[in-house]
Amino acid sequence: MKQLEKLSDRIINRVNINLRGFELDVTPFIKKTVPLTQLVKFYAFYGVTSHHPLHFNFTHSSLAGSYFLGKCKIDRSVLYKSDIRGDELKRKGDLCHSHDSAIPIDEDEVIRIKDSYLIKTLVHNYSHDPENPEEFLIRNTVSLPYANIHGAPMEGCFLGPFSTVDLTTLHGCIIGTFTYVQVGELFHHRIDPGRVWIRSDEFDFNYSFDQEVLDHYISFDADKVPRGVLMDFVEDRKIDFESVFDVVHLEPSISVPDSSALNRYSVVKGDTHIGENVLVAQRGYLENAWLGTGANVQESSYIINSRLEGNDITAHGGKIINARLGKKVFVGFNAFLQGKMDYPLVIGEESIIMPHTIIDLEESLEIPSGHMVWGCIRNREDLKKHSISLKELSQIEGQFTLGSMRFQGSGSNFVQAFQERIEHILEANGAYYDGEKHRGHAQEGQTISYNTIQPYLTGDLKGIYPCIDIKP
Amino acid sequence: MKQLEKLSDRIINRVNINLRGFELDVTPFIKKTVPLTQLVKFYAFYGVTSHHPLHFNFTHSSLAGSYFLGKCKIDRSVLYKSDIRGDELKRKGDLCHSHDSAIPIDEDEVIRIKDSYLIKTLVHNYSHDPENPEEFLIRNTVSLPYANIHGAPMEGCFLGPFSTVDLTTLHGCIIGTFTYVQVGELFHHRIDPGRVWIRSDEFDFNYSFDQEVLDHYISFDADKVPRGVLMDFVEDRKIDFESVFDVVHLEPSISVPDSSALNRYSVVKGDTHIGENVLVAQRGYLENAWLGTGANVQESSYIINSRLEGNDITAHGGKIINARLGKKVFVGFNAFLQGKMDYPLVIGEESIIMPHTIIDLEESLEIPSGHMVWGCIRNREDLKKHSISLKELSQIEGQFTLGSMRFQGSGSNFVQAFQERIEHILEANGAYYDGEKHRGHAQEGQTISYNTIQPYLTGDLKGIYPCIDIKP
Repeated sequence: MKQLEKLSDRIINRVNINLRGFELDVTPFIKKTVPLTQLVKFYAFYGVTSHHPLHFNFTHSSLAGSYFLGKCKIDRSVLYKSDIRGDELKRKGDLCHSHDSAIPIDEDEVIRIKDSYLIKTLVHNYSHDPENPEEFLIRNTVSLPYANIHGAPMEGCFLGPFSTVDLTTLHGCIIGTFTYVQVGELFHHRIDPGRVWIRSDEFDFNYSFDQEVLDHYISFDADKVPRGVLMDFVEDRKIDFESVFDVVHLEPSISVPDSSALNRYSVVKGDTHIGENVLVAQRGYLENAWLGTGANVQESSYIINSRLEGNDITAHGGKIINARLGKKVFVGFNAFLQGKMDYPLVIGEESIIMPHTIIDLEESLEIPSGHMVWGCIRNREDLKKHSISLKELSQIEGQFTLGSMRFQGSGSNFVQAFQERIEHILEANGAYYDGEKHRGHAQEGQTISYNTIQPYLTGDLKGIYPCIDIKP
Repeated sequence: MKQLEKLSDRIINRVNINLRGFELDVTPFIKKTVPLTQLVKFYAFYGVTSHHPLHFNFTHSSLAGSYFLGKCKIDRSVLYKSDIRGDELKRKGDLCHSHDSAIPIDEDEVIRIKDSYLIKTLVHNYSHDPENPEEFLIRNTVSLPYANIHGAPMEGCFLGPFSTVDLTTLHGCIIGTFTYVQVGELFHHRIDPGRVWIRSDEFDFNYSFDQEVLDHYISFDADKVPRGVLMDFVEDRKIDFESVFDVVHLEPSISVPDSSALNRYSVVKGDTHIGENVLVAQRGYLENAWLGTGANVQESSYIINSRLEGNDITAHGGKIINARLGKKVFVGFNAFLQGKMDYPLVIGEESIIMPHTIIDLEESLEIPSGHMVWGCIRNREDLKKHSISLKELSQIEGQFTLGSMRFQGSGSNFVQAFQERIEHILEANGAYYDGEKHRGHAQEGQTISYNTIQPYLTGDLKGIYPCIDIKP
């Protein structure tokens, strides 16, 4: 274990130096969340297909988790049950658009993780940093369970549990528990827990959860493990994944159309239906789930006793329990939507559930179609202060507040940006596949061949993985 | 599949050129034995420990099977369910003794397999070619099911099913079905099926099975798959291995002493007992097996309804059914020993069952202690013509025949060579471990960490494995 201890200390040291301005010591956060002995217990796996550029290079690291599809280089890092998914990386020959200029991509983009400690973290999409388009770099960074690093290169950062950094480049930042940021770029910022912040040249959306809500759903401090309803929810379902990871080959227990992909590292229970062009990513969880054509369920998403009519998006970490979603509903990262068996949550078509929204019903509730919702909603009264129709939002120009949400800028640009992104996600996931054209992840992710790698089990290197280089 | 077809054709072409003097075309042998579509179905696995030098390098190959412990380089080859076991390779700094000279080993020995097609073949031990002590090379070679390549570098060879090449360097040879050779070196020889041939500077042992025996137990020609009792025996038990290969981690179903290793890729059934210092290698098969202290069961060996008192050796491919073995009985490669439930085969202590011996009882039989047996024995009459006491054998000097066995040379050197080898095997396997000293495979093989690798599942590269390089 000596080398693993040294590796852990090395990463802590580097992150602490980067964050010295905040006087943050990440030691207790890491040591409390995952004891080093845990790192020896699991295997890593990486996927190979004939559709994606292949180059994996793992050196001097502890790797439990998945690395797949695309190019990925991990050096002197600890990845614990993390999903590093490189199926949207830029390819050699692509043109990348940013601020009216087109950047030619001369090499396949590579995810590079160096001197970092990512615990149950999702890394996906591609680097949205136009300055370094061919490298999606995560360096000197610590992230805690259920954090999402989405198209967000970063250096010297600390990400709290259930936080999401989306299409944003970070330098020396602290991102609080359950915070969502999509703000382009940040230098040496500390973002408090429970803030949802979206900012571009044209708009600024800002919301912060009440402390009472955070205390109940997800909270965390240095001397304790993350706790609250969200943590209990995922912990309670951990055991269902064990049998999935224990077998080498797993045939789906339900029928899956030829146009759809049900990842073999997902859980399927109860009476579940998979329609055409559906993508269920790894660590997706389906229990009595009805998924209509083009619906998708991304990593660490849970669909329980719910029906999704079609072209619905459940972003990474989204949880939908006892609900009925109309067509093309967008459920953002780490959203937690829970109806009751007696009165399921109903969401009308083309509504947008903002990332990190909590809906936890105390009474029956229907979200009308074409609405945007955010914050914490438990009843109809809450809904009034945490929703707006897309039509109304599109007409806003300048400042607008509703409850503790503050909006500034062009509402129509905000709505348009969201809708364009939703279309892009559906396209990328293959929701619009017609049997020939518009292939996406639902079609390309069907024949992933998985390889596994395990750490040394004894001696000085215990818990460290051998160095591996894998190419076509 | 295009690349896999090209690879197969390339290997066939190279082997045929090497064997052109014999006008042998290996095409039908390969194509009949394993259809190319089979090669896509299985995974390869390689083991990592902190005890063995690590460097695996696999390029442009199809690899189903196991590669483990030590350094191994596979290039443009097909390995189908083959066991490549490198835990006896020479290490940097070793001294290798040959013909009164000591050869210093300057680099860790590496197994290198190039342009070869090995089907259900075992490769083990180290290169006994003193001219190339740091490379155990298998090149331009085809081997068929249950062949053993044991310390035997070779180039341009064809090995029939259930054949064994032991401590012998081969150049452009054909080794017939169920043939055993341990003869130092051979150039452009064709050895007929069913010959057992051991030759050194000091002795020469020669035996050939009758055609009737071969037809019944194991025979093979180009337009058919291998057939006979031996083939049926292993085919009937194939299904038991499926569940073993299907799970990622497998805890032993019986208690295993701290000093013993039960490989996780072995089968354990019925009332089975594992004593101290026992080694059960991968693809070992135990059913109602009682293994006393220091017994070992090597790759593709089967122990069924049998008791081994201790320090017994079951060499690669040995099968022991309904038998009781006294202490330190040696059962050679691919031996097939079958008593009946009513009258188990009894073998007295320190007896030597020659490689490729068939004992298949029609009546009760006891092999006295301190005897050597060979050939095919079904009753007491057969035993007389196929056995000799070690004491008597030691006194032979010159020529000696018994039945169709011909011996020439020093009997005492022959017995001594066998006994020294038996001691060496017991030492290497850790049979003499005392809790501190004399560690061997039984102790070093307990904490192997296995990684898996799978082929491309679609496209031009279907069935080919990605190139992998793995180091400490």
